[in-house]
Amino acid sequence: MIKFNNLSTDAPYVVFKELYNESMKASQKNIEAICIASYSSDNKEVNARFVNLKFINDNKFIFFSNYESPKSQDFYSHNQITALIYWSSINIQIKMKAHIMKTSKEFNQVYFAKRDEKKNALAISSVQSKTIESYEAIQKNYELSLKKSNLTECPEYWGGYSFTPYYFEFWEGHDLRLNKRDVYEMKSNEWKHGILQP
Amino acid sequence: MIKFNNLSTDAPYVVFKELYNESMKASQKNIEAICIASYSSDNKEVNARFVNLKFINDNKFIFFSNYESPKSQDFYSHNQITALIYWSSINIQIKMKAHIMKTSKEFNQVYFAKRDEKKNALAISSVQSKTIESYEAIQKNYELSLKKSNLTECPEYWGGYSFTPYYFEFWEGHDLRLNKRDVYEMKSNEWKHGILQP
Repeated sequence: MIKFNNLSTDAPYVVFKELYNESMKASQKNIEAICIASYSSDNKEVNARFVNLKFINDNKFIFFSNYESPKSQDFYSHNQITALIYWSSINIQIKMKAHIMKTSKEFNQVYFAKRDEKKNALAISSVQSKTIESYEAIQKNYELSLKKSNLTECPEYWGGYSFTPYYFEFWEGHDLRLNKRDVYEMKSNEWKHGILQP
Repeated sequence: MIKFNNLSTDAPYVVFKELYNESMKASQKNIEAICIASYSSDNKEVNARFVNLKFINDNKFIFFSNYESPKSQDFYSHNQITALIYWSSINIQIKMKAHIMKTSKEFNQVYFAKRDEKKNALAISSVQSKTIESYEAIQKNYELSLKKSNLTECPEYWGGYSFTPYYFEFWEGHDLRLNKRDVYEMKSNEWKHGILQP
């Protein structure tokens, strides 16, 4: 589930919400899964991973991460991303291009304090994407964190990322590959609508 | 469905095939959907889209595209990509990093001639990702192509892309975010295995 708060009434947000509702009705599994594609200008390497999209507040898409993870380092070196959703239940792909930034410490702290403490224990204990000798060591670190940490105190190295798209593409799969592709692009502070060839 | 031909017996390919079989048994929808994340060094922009993974031949992953599409231009400017699969039926994410190249004209021609002619009519008629005035115009172009084109002759601007990963990550979702992350990385012509923190 994605939580919508004061959703923007701009055209692409209205389309997004309609498709979300449709996909919910079609019992879409993992409806909050969103692929975030990034680029590291240090390594000259494209990377991508799925994260859970938690909120759309007004025109801001928000997810959470370890701030020392490889994706955070990518965002620091190149702050433009592409986000991609695929809802197989209704055969819809949504692509968004945006610049990404951290959410505020206050926002992170409020959100962290409300989360399941077991999830917080993991957020505190895990040095995301660093190698470790075994899966058992991960479980052990987690158990230690569960006992020893202050589980409502958001660590400095954990928090949200927010992005406001400057480009939306809604792709609807059709027979014979006659797919529908509707684009909304922000130009001179206005959304321009277009249709792309399949 | 993905077609496997003489699949490599290297460790990450064996894991891939096992997970594919598991996902098939779990009736995964659109099992061939794969996200290809790319970077344009001309526009300094990350992009991503889902394509259909058609073949894994030995150690080569193959999909097809219009060669004049924005993704093709991205590959031309920066040939490294990340490919991402998510099989929700078994909660598995597979990430691959690779360099990408075109398949041969001969390979493309053989494949094209075997495809459904209706799909070929679309491949011939569509100037992929260019804007057009209406969806009706797309249908009209398609109908024209269906009547006029030689539908078994592969056009120069259409064909396959092939990539051989130098990095595989298998991510398995678990309760409390204690996710399992197994990595295989090609170093000095050998696959090195590691475990990543969640």
